[in-house]
Amino acid sequence: MSHIQGDIHGDPHGDVSVDELRLGDELTGTGSAAASADIAEYALWLGDDALILSQQLGEWISRAPELEEDVALGNIALDLLGHARSFLHFAGSFDGRSEDDLAYFRDEPEFRCAWIVQQPNGDFAQTIARQFVVSTYMFELHSALRASSDPTLAAIAEKSLKEVDYHRDHAVQWVLRLAGGTDESRRRMIRALGDVWPYADELFRDEPLIDRLGDAAARPSTLRAGFAAVVAAVFAEAELTLPAVAASSAGGRRGAHASPFGHVLAEMQVLARRHPGASW
Amino acid sequence: MSHIQGDIHGDPHGDVSVDELRLGDELTGTGSAAASADIAEYALWLGDDALILSQQLGEWISRAPELEEDVALGNIALDLLGHARSFLHFAGSFDGRSEDDLAYFRDEPEFRCAWIVQQPNGDFAQTIARQFVVSTYMFELHSALRASSDPTLAAIAEKSLKEVDYHRDHAVQWVLRLAGGTDESRRRMIRALGDVWPYADELFRDEPLIDRLGDAAARPSTLRAGFAAVVAAVFAEAELTLPAVAASSAGGRRGAHASPFGHVLAEMQVLARRHPGASW
Repeated sequence: MSHIQGDIHGDPHGDVSVDELRLGDELTGTGSAAASADIAEYALWLGDDALILSQQLGEWISRAPELEEDVALGNIALDLLGHARSFLHFAGSFDGRSEDDLAYFRDEPEFRCAWIVQQPNGDFAQTIARQFVVSTYMFELHSALRASSDPTLAAIAEKSLKEVDYHRDHAVQWVLRLAGGTDESRRRMIRALGDVWPYADELFRDEPLIDRLGDAAARPSTLRAGFAAVVAAVFAEAELTLPAVAASSAGGRRGAHASPFGHVLAEMQVLARRHPGASW
Repeated sequence: MSHIQGDIHGDPHGDVSVDELRLGDELTGTGSAAASADIAEYALWLGDDALILSQQLGEWISRAPELEEDVALGNIALDLLGHARSFLHFAGSFDGRSEDDLAYFRDEPEFRCAWIVQQPNGDFAQTIARQFVVSTYMFELHSALRASSDPTLAAIAEKSLKEVDYHRDHAVQWVLRLAGGTDESRRRMIRALGDVWPYADELFRDEPLIDRLGDAAARPSTLRAGFAAVVAAVFAEAELTLPAVAASSAGGRRGAHASPFGHVLAEMQVLARRHPGASW
């Protein structure tokens, strides 16, 4: 479907303009060199993490316990959707697929998101626990990825870091509020952290792909210390202890996914698949 | 639940700051005089329209046929949620209710939204048809409301107008794309306009409240000419004719609502009502 250009004539108010949408301008890294197979795979890791978390957070719009929080979670969802688009657009440059092809027309085993973003929203505390882990990880990731030898990945990281910084502040603030609130809010926060903690470990594993990428990637294992330092500071402030749970085997980077993921994916893809190419 | 102030200490990265959320700063009109009963009722009209439309559009996040469109509709939903918060905050100043009280703890007959925002998302064309009518109306509304004798309403309108202008451009562009696309997209656009058109009329009716408000309100009937001019220009460009349908009796301004509304409201309120005051 082509974009429409030009202005509407005959409008006495004179200010209904119909400008061409400029997709390229909004996507960091557009116009740069095509990704290699390995870089594309890595971009899928990062893009799928952001895409699926965005989809999950979008559920909260107008449904959080406070309107202010609706706005905050909605903004975070849209930030992440922006990051996802940039990463997926770049991943698709390898074999000519569009961001929409990658989001809507891959099947479950082709997704590369970590298991933590596939965990359900649960109650508000569980959403916050998931946000705390993922945004703390993403802050370390984007900080390090700015030094990537791949200029497109470095540019996406540079542009995203400020937003991820806000996401982390938001999550930290809520962990402290809930842990320091009523007995019930503290109980729920502790339970939620225990529920998501097994899935934190996967984010810091060096798969074979990472060795092949060298300086192009932010090596996951090197992000662990920074993550642990933030967690330690927040938990000390909130008088929380690290959940005593074993790490999940997970396997998202290889396309093995947890059971709730099929539902999330189906909801995300149903409309695009019903009208492929939006060609009606 | 109190906000937490201060910084986290002991973080070697040094940039996890936990600042107090400043709700008041984000809401236009905060700190001004309390609304009168009539002004509060009028603010509910405008706030409820924005709130319910926002809730409906939020459904599209990560579910539209294109990621780019997810972002656009998500941003529009968040803009509207911001307008809703400002109007509801002001409405609540009359009797000491918060924006959250008004959003989550009123029952169906207490809502004052017009029927058009209660219409279902339907397919993408129906969402666009609803957006086209409502955003064209809202542009006229906010333009006129800038001259309100009530300084809070004038300030909210002044701040919102630029966003509503974008919403209208977005909807106009899509009406033209769908009407000028394939036979199928044109058929769906025409059907969708016919479906929503009966509900346009309600937006321009002068209820008795409007007479009592005088210069404080943007008189609905005076907005009709500007709306009609934009519709005429867009329909001429798209080679569409005005749907030949009778106006619905509607009645949203008096708390009479269409059947789908109960479902929309239930989804929006279930979490807040399950945890009243978010006090866990």
